[in-house]
Amino acid sequence: MPNVTPDPQAVREVLDKARAEGRTGLTAPEGKRICDAYGIATPGEGLATSAEEAAALAAEIGLPVVLKIVSPDILHKTEAGGVLVGLATPEAVREGYAQIMAAAGAYNADAAIDGVQVQQMIGGGHEVIIGAVTDPTFGKVVAFGLGGVLVEVIKDVTFRLAPLSGDEATGMLDDIKAAEVLKGARGAAPADRAALAAMIERVGALVSDFPEITEVDLNPVFATAEGAIAADVRILLAAGPVVEPVRLPRDQILASMNRIFKPRSVAVIGASGETGKIGNSVMRNLINGGYRGHIYPINPKAPEILGLPAYPGIADVPGDVDVAVFAIPAKFVAAALEEAGRKGVAGAIMIPSGFAETGNVEGQQEIVEIARRHGVRMLGPNIYGYYYTPENLCATFCTPYDVKGSVALTSQSGGIGMAILGFSRTTKMGVSAIVGVGNKADVDEDDLLTFFEQDDNTRCVAMHLEDLKDGRGFVDAVRRVVKTKPVIVLKAGRTAMGARAAGSHTGALAGDDKVYDDILRQAGVVRAAGLNDMLEYARSLPLMPTPQGENVVIITGAGGSGVLLSDACVDNGLTLMEIPPDLDEAFRAYIPPFGAAGNPIDITGGEPPSTYENTVRLGLSDPRIHALVLGYWHTIVTPPMVFAELIARVVADERAKGNTKPVVASLAGDTEVEEACEYLFDHGVVAYPYTTEKPVAVLGAKYRWARAAGLLSG
Amino acid sequence: MPNVTPDPQAVREVLDKARAEGRTGLTAPEGKRICDAYGIATPGEGLATSAEEAAALAAEIGLPVVLKIVSPDILHKTEAGGVLVGLATPEAVREGYAQIMAAAGAYNADAAIDGVQVQQMIGGGHEVIIGAVTDPTFGKVVAFGLGGVLVEVIKDVTFRLAPLSGDEATGMLDDIKAAEVLKGARGAAPADRAALAAMIERVGALVSDFPEITEVDLNPVFATAEGAIAADVRILLAAGPVVEPVRLPRDQILASMNRIFKPRSVAVIGASGETGKIGNSVMRNLINGGYRGHIYPINPKAPEILGLPAYPGIADVPGDVDVAVFAIPAKFVAAALEEAGRKGVAGAIMIPSGFAETGNVEGQQEIVEIARRHGVRMLGPNIYGYYYTPENLCATFCTPYDVKGSVALTSQSGGIGMAILGFSRTTKMGVSAIVGVGNKADVDEDDLLTFFEQDDNTRCVAMHLEDLKDGRGFVDAVRRVVKTKPVIVLKAGRTAMGARAAGSHTGALAGDDKVYDDILRQAGVVRAAGLNDMLEYARSLPLMPTPQGENVVIITGAGGSGVLLSDACVDNGLTLMEIPPDLDEAFRAYIPPFGAAGNPIDITGGEPPSTYENTVRLGLSDPRIHALVLGYWHTIVTPPMVFAELIARVVADERAKGNTKPVVASLAGDTEVEEACEYLFDHGVVAYPYTTEKPVAVLGAKYRWARAAGLLSG
Repeated sequence: MPNVTPDPQAVREVLDKARAEGRTGLTAPEGKRICDAYGIATPGEGLATSAEEAAALAAEIGLPVVLKIVSPDILHKTEAGGVLVGLATPEAVREGYAQIMAAAGAYNADAAIDGVQVQQMIGGGHEVIIGAVTDPTFGKVVAFGLGGVLVEVIKDVTFRLAPLSGDEATGMLDDIKAAEVLKGARGAAPADRAALAAMIERVGALVSDFPEITEVDLNPVFATAEGAIAADVRILLAAGPVVEPVRLPRDQILASMNRIFKPRSVAVIGASGETGKIGNSVMRNLINGGYRGHIYPINPKAPEILGLPAYPGIADVPGDVDVAVFAIPAKFVAAALEEAGRKGVAGAIMIPSGFAETGNVEGQQEIVEIARRHGVRMLGPNIYGYYYTPENLCATFCTPYDVKGSVALTSQSGGIGMAILGFSRTTKMGVSAIVGVGNKADVDEDDLLTFFEQDDNTRCVAMHLEDLKDGRGFVDAVRRVVKTKPVIVLKAGRTAMGARAAGSHTGALAGDDKVYDDILRQAGVVRAAGLNDMLEYARSLPLMPTPQGENVVIITGAGGSGVLLSDACVDNGLTLMEIPPDLDEAFRAYIPPFGAAGNPIDITGGEPPSTYENTVRLGLSDPRIHALVLGYWHTIVTPPMVFAELIARVVADERAKGNTKPVVASLAGDTEVEEACEYLFDHGVVAYPYTTEKPVAVLGAKYRWARAAGLLSG
Repeated sequence: MPNVTPDPQAVREVLDKARAEGRTGLTAPEGKRICDAYGIATPGEGLATSAEEAAALAAEIGLPVVLKIVSPDILHKTEAGGVLVGLATPEAVREGYAQIMAAAGAYNADAAIDGVQVQQMIGGGHEVIIGAVTDPTFGKVVAFGLGGVLVEVIKDVTFRLAPLSGDEATGMLDDIKAAEVLKGARGAAPADRAALAAMIERVGALVSDFPEITEVDLNPVFATAEGAIAADVRILLAAGPVVEPVRLPRDQILASMNRIFKPRSVAVIGASGETGKIGNSVMRNLINGGYRGHIYPINPKAPEILGLPAYPGIADVPGDVDVAVFAIPAKFVAAALEEAGRKGVAGAIMIPSGFAETGNVEGQQEIVEIARRHGVRMLGPNIYGYYYTPENLCATFCTPYDVKGSVALTSQSGGIGMAILGFSRTTKMGVSAIVGVGNKADVDEDDLLTFFEQDDNTRCVAMHLEDLKDGRGFVDAVRRVVKTKPVIVLKAGRTAMGARAAGSHTGALAGDDKVYDDILRQAGVVRAAGLNDMLEYARSLPLMPTPQGENVVIITGAGGSGVLLSDACVDNGLTLMEIPPDLDEAFRAYIPPFGAAGNPIDITGGEPPSTYENTVRLGLSDPRIHALVLGYWHTIVTPPMVFAELIARVVADERAKGNTKPVVASLAGDTEVEEACEYLFDHGVVAYPYTTEKPVAVLGAKYRWARAAGLLSG
């Protein structure tokens, strides 16, 4: 591919002209001019204003040709009878010209006609579609798919944020189900991948450079072994001005977030001594949770609440206040927030509901403006509060619990927040933070990610979200965080295809969830399919060391579990190691002659603890193995707790020797296996009873992150 | 489509000739003759043995034509340069003839050449593939897919047992991902569905009528609006004799199974008084389980075991013996089985391992023959035994547990059997039977299904299996059972594609699991993706009444759960009812003004118990609604146990009034929701904490069964 320097000036001229004329669609010649300016190959062509001119142009370009009407008033050319293909002689071109002009006149007598486009007729090779849309969440997004049935019926298409690198564009070619086709499956010539990737990259650059371009549709693009040519170009423009979201600088976000998560003092506006009130729950949870900063109850009617001196207003508090937690009805919020703003709080934790979620959009807008005016960052409204365990800061109406750990969880919904709390408590999941984001009127996931990225108390982030205020800001934040910490996302509303006005093929293909899925995956997010997956990933990922490579080995006492664990490995994109002969021999030395080495390694039922110990130790110590999946079968010879204690001991031993590998276990047996799993979890080994899927799914999630973070590239 | 009466005699002649010549492949003219005999349309054609004859034939058939070499020694015609297409003039046909003969001679000088086939050149319309293979598990299976990339790269293909009805064949057209294409998506003419279905049906009839036909490959078939023509026909034959599996008559199976599951007496061969021995565990479990028939311990060395008189051999037992449980080492089994056979036992429960699973295939064959000679049905070997709760018959080395119920579970693996037991105990799942089938040397799933079908104590069957001895027998049994009882199957080894010698396109497409999946689904099986799914389906399906229609309604206290529950409904193929205006109004009357009716019905958080009660009661009583999915959010106003008790009460009330609908619930909250879920399960309402997926997945499983059983057709 020739390196092309874009000519933005040429594009600017075309766009300015179209917008000056109030058009949102470009003509074919305009589209071609833009493609030329960005090095996007299109067929040879020219504009003819007479039949003779058309025939002359055709002779110059080379026969056969295609004729197409050119009119700013006719967008659907085929419908208007404005397209003729395969004209192979000068006479046919002349006659075609006349025919098209007649049809166009019949279709729309008032249409302004610029002439007829004479175009090189191309075809052969692979038919693909390359396009770009303006997604409401992510902004400019490029799309790639194979043309025809594959993209239109099978919806085999892939999306990326624009702009994108050549490598990312090449990745798109491999990210469709029918990827093999372009590589020359079924005896066809392989497509010129470099040419296709370059075209995708250039479309990405074009829409990024010119935000007023809302959609680009190159469909079809013919890709042969020698190159790629866009046979049809469709470009749509925004009717109005283009607004970019405002983003605060990272330093400024961090300054606020640090004061919010590590406050020296918290005021509770609406603090109450009366049980059953939210202002009472928050007070009790702050005190009982063990928060060591100043707690200032604000209540105009009580001199003291739960033993602490109360103040009529936040202005009356003697010292500085970092955080104000609001536990008052919505109608009193604005005035209190104004006062808190004047007091200089960094954060307003807005528990009250009764704002946008009940239709009170103006009320919400009002408090956003107050907060912004005072430089106050606001969490919520309509949330259960927030909890940051390293500071024992339980500023929520849900009771605190005492397992500190390294996972930060956020949720957009209160119900999901309560599920997070219940699950955490019952599974003893170690948590650094639980944060409700609610209506996200101000603070959103980007801000929280920015804090968690640099928070040494957090090693993993799990987020439930229903939408993103600024998808691009979210992706930027995620990309930074995932380098060192997994980010798990449960995106609700997966299957609800957003109603979308489809102005082009690409637009019609960009169903909300496919765009989310591709872009979140590219950003390195570990996406959870459901609530329980998110919770289990959050619980298990921090317990697993990062794998150093793709070789997974299954060691099982039950052949039946081995088969199911293998299924689960394939389902979760894990690689069952091909065991080298020397290692196979080493395993065989420990197992009965009728046991099966290979992978799964079936040590057979009824074996003593030593067989589990020897094989697991070998698996942990051999550097060619990168992760272990254990299948335990309850027997009298090796009861569940014996298994649990020995595995915990062996794993700890080997970790002490530097053999840190993820180990997950599936326990099949009578109810004692539940206690054994609990013991294993307590000792840092992920273990589940009555399921072969879950332990492998969490290992798969760890691998997805490790790959995205580039930790497995070696 | 014309009705065609097959001409088996014509096929028989072709096959006999080919087999007499020791061939396993048919020539193109032979293939065409067979197609003609079964009404499978192929292009007009004839065999030419000279260039002149070829030109004359071409003129008769109509130009253009295709020429193909005909030789029993050249199967890969294209490779041999033996195919020319698009010959449009008599001269081209003459030259083509000469060219093909020269190429064939160069490819294989020794090949016997019958001549050159002159064939009508067809094309246009849709390119599809229709074929048949002989599957090792299911026997004759037909395949259908769209040609080209879709079938070869995307693997968009569907399978059915042969023979099949016209309706089943039509169903195949709709069962591929690209089904819309045949209906005329993208402006193409729709294909003649009747012609395609008829061709599939006829291929199914052909391979069923002639078991020695192992593979048929019609590829491509061109399907237009006017009909379907198979452009290329490839038929392969079995080299050796064709053996069909032996099946016992249903009465005979039932007679044995009834004696085995409801025995008047059980002998334990290898009974022991010594703790830790299997023969001791089995004795204790029979006695402690409460079995009321005679128990005869067999042990040559003890006069009495656990208080019961023991006998040196089974021959010494005074009365009749229905079942002999074997708890002795493998090497003593054959002699003891011989003795048990002479005693006239109906069943031998073969716990011992040490047979085929450790490589002792001969030993296993020996005991199978002994059992068969005596008409003894044998369960195992290599199993944990069996348990039938209605008879308190715990003939296993796992301890009995006391929740009788209506689910029968079977497993091929001991580990999975132990997981079934532990899960059953901890979740208090009501069980009718737990059966190990182990090596399946004799009794297999078909026999057990035949028993469970007519067993009034069993209302649902769940089976873990790794393979099927006789897939067709299994399908027959399943089809009978699912009419009244769900059959849940966990098929392990899903992702291990069996190594298969691919003699045709269709053969190459028939990956084990796709065939299993399509055929099990068609049989009406509810397939579980993993172990935990199987267990949860088994636990929950019997608790749910059968839905009377497809209208599912979500009622939720947490908007966030509502979105996730909607996602789960779509994932599980459930239909979210479009609420009619009058019903919408009726719901709105019970919920706050800012709550959302529609579906999900969001009653909003913080509502009192009465809001849950009113809306759930309305959902249960309105006959247009067929199933409810509840989303609970833990609040002080409606705590978990208050919710649980009220839902249990309302559901019971409404069921008493005849409003029997499935109700499932997802509870989001602090740990008290676990107790609430337990309470709900105890009261017949399926409820799970911390997950929005599981309750919907089990409802989806119930629907899958109800649809398969034809209970939702109205």
